[in-house]
Amino acid sequence: MNENIIRKMQEIVGEDWVVSDLDKVSSYCEDETEKAVKPKVCRDCVVVKPASAEEISEIMKYANENKYSVMARGGGTSLSGAAVAIMPTIIISMERMNKIIEVDEASLTVECEAGVTLLDIVELFNKHDSLYFPIHPGDEGAQVGGMVVMNAGGVRAVRYGVMRDQVKGLEAVLPTGEIIHAGGKLIKNNAGLDLKNLLIGSEGILGIVTKVTLSIKPKDKHIGSLLVSFENDSDAVNAVTEIFKSGIKPLAIEYMEKTAILRAAEDIGMTWPSNVGNVDLYFIVSERKEDDLYEMYETIVGICEENNAVESFVAESSKEQKTLLEIRSHVYPSMHKMVVDAIDAAVPIKNLAKYMEGIKKIYEKYGVEISTIGHIGDGNMHNSILTEDAEKPECYDEIVDEIFNLVIECEGAITGEHGVGKVRNERLKLQFTEKELNLMKAIKNVFDPNNILNPGTAL
Amino acid sequence: MNENIIRKMQEIVGEDWVVSDLDKVSSYCEDETEKAVKPKVCRDCVVVKPASAEEISEIMKYANENKYSVMARGGGTSLSGAAVAIMPTIIISMERMNKIIEVDEASLTVECEAGVTLLDIVELFNKHDSLYFPIHPGDEGAQVGGMVVMNAGGVRAVRYGVMRDQVKGLEAVLPTGEIIHAGGKLIKNNAGLDLKNLLIGSEGILGIVTKVTLSIKPKDKHIGSLLVSFENDSDAVNAVTEIFKSGIKPLAIEYMEKTAILRAAEDIGMTWPSNVGNVDLYFIVSERKEDDLYEMYETIVGICEENNAVESFVAESSKEQKTLLEIRSHVYPSMHKMVVDAIDAAVPIKNLAKYMEGIKKIYEKYGVEISTIGHIGDGNMHNSILTEDAEKPECYDEIVDEIFNLVIECEGAITGEHGVGKVRNERLKLQFTEKELNLMKAIKNVFDPNNILNPGTAL
Repeated sequence: MNENIIRKMQEIVGEDWVVSDLDKVSSYCEDETEKAVKPKVCRDCVVVKPASAEEISEIMKYANENKYSVMARGGGTSLSGAAVAIMPTIIISMERMNKIIEVDEASLTVECEAGVTLLDIVELFNKHDSLYFPIHPGDEGAQVGGMVVMNAGGVRAVRYGVMRDQVKGLEAVLPTGEIIHAGGKLIKNNAGLDLKNLLIGSEGILGIVTKVTLSIKPKDKHIGSLLVSFENDSDAVNAVTEIFKSGIKPLAIEYMEKTAILRAAEDIGMTWPSNVGNVDLYFIVSERKEDDLYEMYETIVGICEENNAVESFVAESSKEQKTLLEIRSHVYPSMHKMVVDAIDAAVPIKNLAKYMEGIKKIYEKYGVEISTIGHIGDGNMHNSILTEDAEKPECYDEIVDEIFNLVIECEGAITGEHGVGKVRNERLKLQFTEKELNLMKAIKNVFDPNNILNPGTAL
Repeated sequence: MNENIIRKMQEIVGEDWVVSDLDKVSSYCEDETEKAVKPKVCRDCVVVKPASAEEISEIMKYANENKYSVMARGGGTSLSGAAVAIMPTIIISMERMNKIIEVDEASLTVECEAGVTLLDIVELFNKHDSLYFPIHPGDEGAQVGGMVVMNAGGVRAVRYGVMRDQVKGLEAVLPTGEIIHAGGKLIKNNAGLDLKNLLIGSEGILGIVTKVTLSIKPKDKHIGSLLVSFENDSDAVNAVTEIFKSGIKPLAIEYMEKTAILRAAEDIGMTWPSNVGNVDLYFIVSERKEDDLYEMYETIVGICEENNAVESFVAESSKEQKTLLEIRSHVYPSMHKMVVDAIDAAVPIKNLAKYMEGIKKIYEKYGVEISTIGHIGDGNMHNSILTEDAEKPECYDEIVDEIFNLVIECEGAITGEHGVGKVRNERLKLQFTEKELNLMKAIKNVFDPNNILNPGTAL
């Protein structure tokens, strides 16, 4: 990396907070995207660890003047290459901006710097009697800033939506160096165009988010898990559809193929409580009162039985619940060495059956394993293309083309939670018209006229 | 209005659907903004009533080529001059695009054309067993398209937020004539920059919304109202703050000065059930179970009593509830002939006490009546400046300046639900930096390079 850049960075943040040794820089240059689809990583980068929005502003002004590429880095947990450096880049690591600023119990908000991790937030509210932050996209190493710009999702979207639904306000540094604020601790706010939502889900191409105000929720006292097994996916999908029609909103509804969940259990030496059937629905339910929890179980099991469920199991104790969650969380790691591409499309609940049917046909046509697990309750399924060595099969392009065409036919989105990053850009034209994409590009140009911020991402 | 324009409009939508007689055009040229602050209305307009997005597209292409001003018109219920024509304008009335397209009970959405009224939606779900659309900004003559671009609010925001929180997808025609789609029936959707939220709350300056997909909710079976009276505003505000801290979310919490609510009751010959105290909190509560409703009453009354409530009254019967709602709804009409300016700022719940205290000081300083009623549960208070004849008092500018400075000091928004329209533009610089406003203007320019769509609004 250019010596002048390194010196300038040292000037701005202090020598201790600039990393330029190749071996130390290396891990900052990429994220957790599968190796078969990950773009080629450029390690000719410098890592800078600023302590404030003002320091980031200085870095941006310098980079913008000189047209150097800049990328913000949070926990590096992206699965779409959003945090992969593909050219010599000034990588801004947010790790030092990790203060939780305020929990406001009247406005029901928590304000924190962007480098605060999900784990920090979980631990903060573990200690709190009655409030918590409901969004949990999985990896607790994720940082709040990254979660905002990637609009992270996770299992609890059925009831609480995604990050977008919980971000009340934010501070960001623009590529041109100005610090802006959008939103606030407000339920109603109708002044001006909505810059806040533009930055949410922008995958770090419009600005670097430095501070966030999130809404927090009352903690339900009673939480439970319910596992229901089915012979086939269409019965499971019908059950989910009927559950929504009945007006019920569990915290989460997860869908798992038996083979995948049993493999995960075996891999960590644990026992999955159901051996019958071919697919499971895993419900996480939370209620203010214990009675309501039991009533919820009863309604769900009733609807599932009407849709040919073959077995159901209530995880009563917190130990049993933890076991279920642990095995479920291990599904992806247990298949990781075989995953070529973890597609994360989302479709409307109404079209779930059509989507699942279509995926099965593609699978049968090409004879390549496509494992389907995921957040069925919010329509966001993970279809992982698997091969023995996680190398692309010959028919990879055709399979992916067919899957995404199916997604669009089902009125879906090509990515429900991972984002476009640097791996789905070419597919955007399936979901958007040329005019829609041109609007997005023109908006990017308004924020970042020199295209210095995370180029090659999101659009 | 230019004869060529009229002819072209007749060509596009058919002669029957173009109105050019001054007396018939007149009512389409303005909205419900108070006369003391309403911008000067231009009636040299033509009203066009298209039947489809395609016809609107044709109108736009023609207007854009010739740089004619265009304004979409819904129910005309805006209070901020957003639907006031201030120059010769092609007014596109959405009244013929009034089809409800689909209720999807699995995806929990209703899709409709933009000219569907709130009344249509209310009536549709009155007939439905278990689902409804929760947002209710008041005037049922409002149209869905207008509600989306104005990001309408109303009393139920405490639990359900505002329009923005319920819009899943939309179709819009750009000023340059292209038809775009954003969002869908999806809970998770992470592809591309968020054009949907840009259009929501854009006050009709980025595009004309032609179709909308809204999320719908399970109907609570049990609904009730509770009235609690206090000697003074600070006790009432403290009670609200404590209620939120306790984790309770009523459907609505309204705040009313006794003088205002008694005047409203008298005006329509009805009786308000409480005569003691100086301010009332009016809670609307809905729960799935009757027991939960009573428990909610008990908790709320308990907290209010701890904060010196002097009387409480539960409206048990639906007749009693209807009486409360009717009187509350009449507060604004009953003072309308005195209202100079109905300020609708919003502040964080945490800063409500400070805000109310500040308003009182301004009121005392200038000796002009400032009536405060409003949606205290979401921090959106309506401070109406009153004079006998609704003419601006001499110190009007100073009062408004002080109120808005106070709003900003309280980390609030200058408008919580009415929007900037054509009456608050000058105040935007209080809430936003020059750079933030320039970003918004540049985005407007991306969508509308010739500035033909509702010029003078929102920015």
